[in-house]
Amino acid sequence: MAKKYQVLGVGNAIVDVIAAVNNEFLAEHGDAKGAMNLVDQSRSAKIYTAMPPAQEHSGGSAGNTMAGFAALGGKGAYIGKVKDDQLGNIFAHDIRSAGVDFLTAPSNDETPTASCMILVTPDGERTMHTYLGACVNLSEDDIAERDIENAEIVYFEGYLWDMDAAKKAFLKAMKIAHTSGGKVALTLSDSFCVGRFRSEFLDLVEHHVDILFANEDEITSLYQVETFDEALQHVAGHVSIAALTRGEKGCVIVTPGEIHIIDAVETQVVDTTGAGDLFASGFLYGITNGYSLAEAGKVGGICAAEIISHIGARPESDIKMLVEKGL
Amino acid sequence: MAKKYQVLGVGNAIVDVIAAVNNEFLAEHGDAKGAMNLVDQSRSAKIYTAMPPAQEHSGGSAGNTMAGFAALGGKGAYIGKVKDDQLGNIFAHDIRSAGVDFLTAPSNDETPTASCMILVTPDGERTMHTYLGACVNLSEDDIAERDIENAEIVYFEGYLWDMDAAKKAFLKAMKIAHTSGGKVALTLSDSFCVGRFRSEFLDLVEHHVDILFANEDEITSLYQVETFDEALQHVAGHVSIAALTRGEKGCVIVTPGEIHIIDAVETQVVDTTGAGDLFASGFLYGITNGYSLAEAGKVGGICAAEIISHIGARPESDIKMLVEKGL
Repeated sequence: MAKKYQVLGVGNAIVDVIAAVNNEFLAEHGDAKGAMNLVDQSRSAKIYTAMPPAQEHSGGSAGNTMAGFAALGGKGAYIGKVKDDQLGNIFAHDIRSAGVDFLTAPSNDETPTASCMILVTPDGERTMHTYLGACVNLSEDDIAERDIENAEIVYFEGYLWDMDAAKKAFLKAMKIAHTSGGKVALTLSDSFCVGRFRSEFLDLVEHHVDILFANEDEITSLYQVETFDEALQHVAGHVSIAALTRGEKGCVIVTPGEIHIIDAVETQVVDTTGAGDLFASGFLYGITNGYSLAEAGKVGGICAAEIISHIGARPESDIKMLVEKGL
Repeated sequence: MAKKYQVLGVGNAIVDVIAAVNNEFLAEHGDAKGAMNLVDQSRSAKIYTAMPPAQEHSGGSAGNTMAGFAALGGKGAYIGKVKDDQLGNIFAHDIRSAGVDFLTAPSNDETPTASCMILVTPDGERTMHTYLGACVNLSEDDIAERDIENAEIVYFEGYLWDMDAAKKAFLKAMKIAHTSGGKVALTLSDSFCVGRFRSEFLDLVEHHVDILFANEDEITSLYQVETFDEALQHVAGHVSIAALTRGEKGCVIVTPGEIHIIDAVETQVVDTTGAGDLFASGFLYGITNGYSLAEAGKVGGICAAEIISHIGARPESDIKMLVEKGL
């Protein structure tokens, strides 16, 4: 019997707060330019107070992926922790109205819903300051055995490893997935994140992950090599499916027996945030709906092209139609 | 004992005659824009008479490849037919002074040395008109058993199939190469050429060729597919080494057990003529001098980048040094 969910995503539930700032603002209030910086609550509040008017967009890497997956018509669910506060309500509203089953009860301690202040400088660079907030409350208690058993694929963010309780939740869910015949997918999330957890991620990729998502920076960081091709030689044969994204160079899909090289879909780039997340939406949709690996890579590329053509990491066009037209 | 030649190239010995023309000139005197058009002697003479001042460059696909191969320090030889006339002397001078053993005696009938009138329009497009001239005299008699036995790799142009005698010479040389422990390399030359001889080329690739060179247009034409990835799936496992070039997307090296994806070397593009020829120079140099497949692809890319940064398809910089610096 088919499982209830094709994909269940697990990640940090975050609301993005995006504003354009000048370089002086960034120098005064910001952290390492272009990076995803983890900040504490007081630092986050300080930046927000000083920040010009902003837009709020529901975000979170796996949240973006699941919203895109549902928009394509996939049956998806999401596990991630918000607080029962205004941002938490926004997050829950957005992911549910996208058609995703949001399975996690909100926390009710003091810690507010996570937010990511994104400061966009005139050069188009985005500098992120993530306050993980209520995400620290995600724990093994949020992993219900039945939910995981209900999923064909359980998809995890590497970012979860930044918190000890979330990492335990990750490992619990991974174990249930494998014992119930589900597959485990992982995105490496960010090259800095790979740097923080390289040896653990290498072990995951080698022994536990069925479907790996990584961009060029992440996969070269994982294997500490200079070129994409060297990383390709390392990953080939070590994971059932690796979906490696290369920005405007498209993507490469690697299995022990096949390699597919798929060109990117041309588009006008406005904001690259969410490109990897939406690629994963499309690729996961493809492989759970009987598409070939090459077609799944193409679907991923179409979704990524949509998301980078506007601000924010949730689809604004009918990506289901774009995929039907584009394949 | 090591063979005398690392690579012996067999091809059409042609002198390129390059001139800038306006669109009106092309409309009045030219053939299908952007294509390599075969023309007869009277047509060739007519175009040349009307043509503005031009530059002459020794050319011919395999000739370019061997000149580049020797410039890198490789031990190479060349078989191709010129007449003992002025253009023939230019061709012989240029390839010999590049350090290549030019093995073929010139013909002495009426038919002049082959030339290719290249009309460059203001849009940068190049329209070629090739008069094969003395190339039609290349025959089995020009294939000395000892020369072929002396080569580790015998490298052929697909263009040779445009003439029946040259095709017989090709087949004779291929047979000697294989019985004497040499390898056979083929470049598909041009997507129109592939269109003319598809079924024969398919048979060659499947049964006789050890090292295949093709660009994206040629390999998709060979298998009559839409995308590079589809062609990749067709060629994988069907030839010992396929070196597939993709212009600014770099190259892909395919063996039954490995696939390497090598990025292009950035350069200012002036004239793409000879890019494939010089890629082959570098790749052949790499694989005959103990480089890894990935390194050989990189060497090919460095040589291709040099050749497209100026007019003409013979190197103008010290590509040996460029390779030493670039690897």
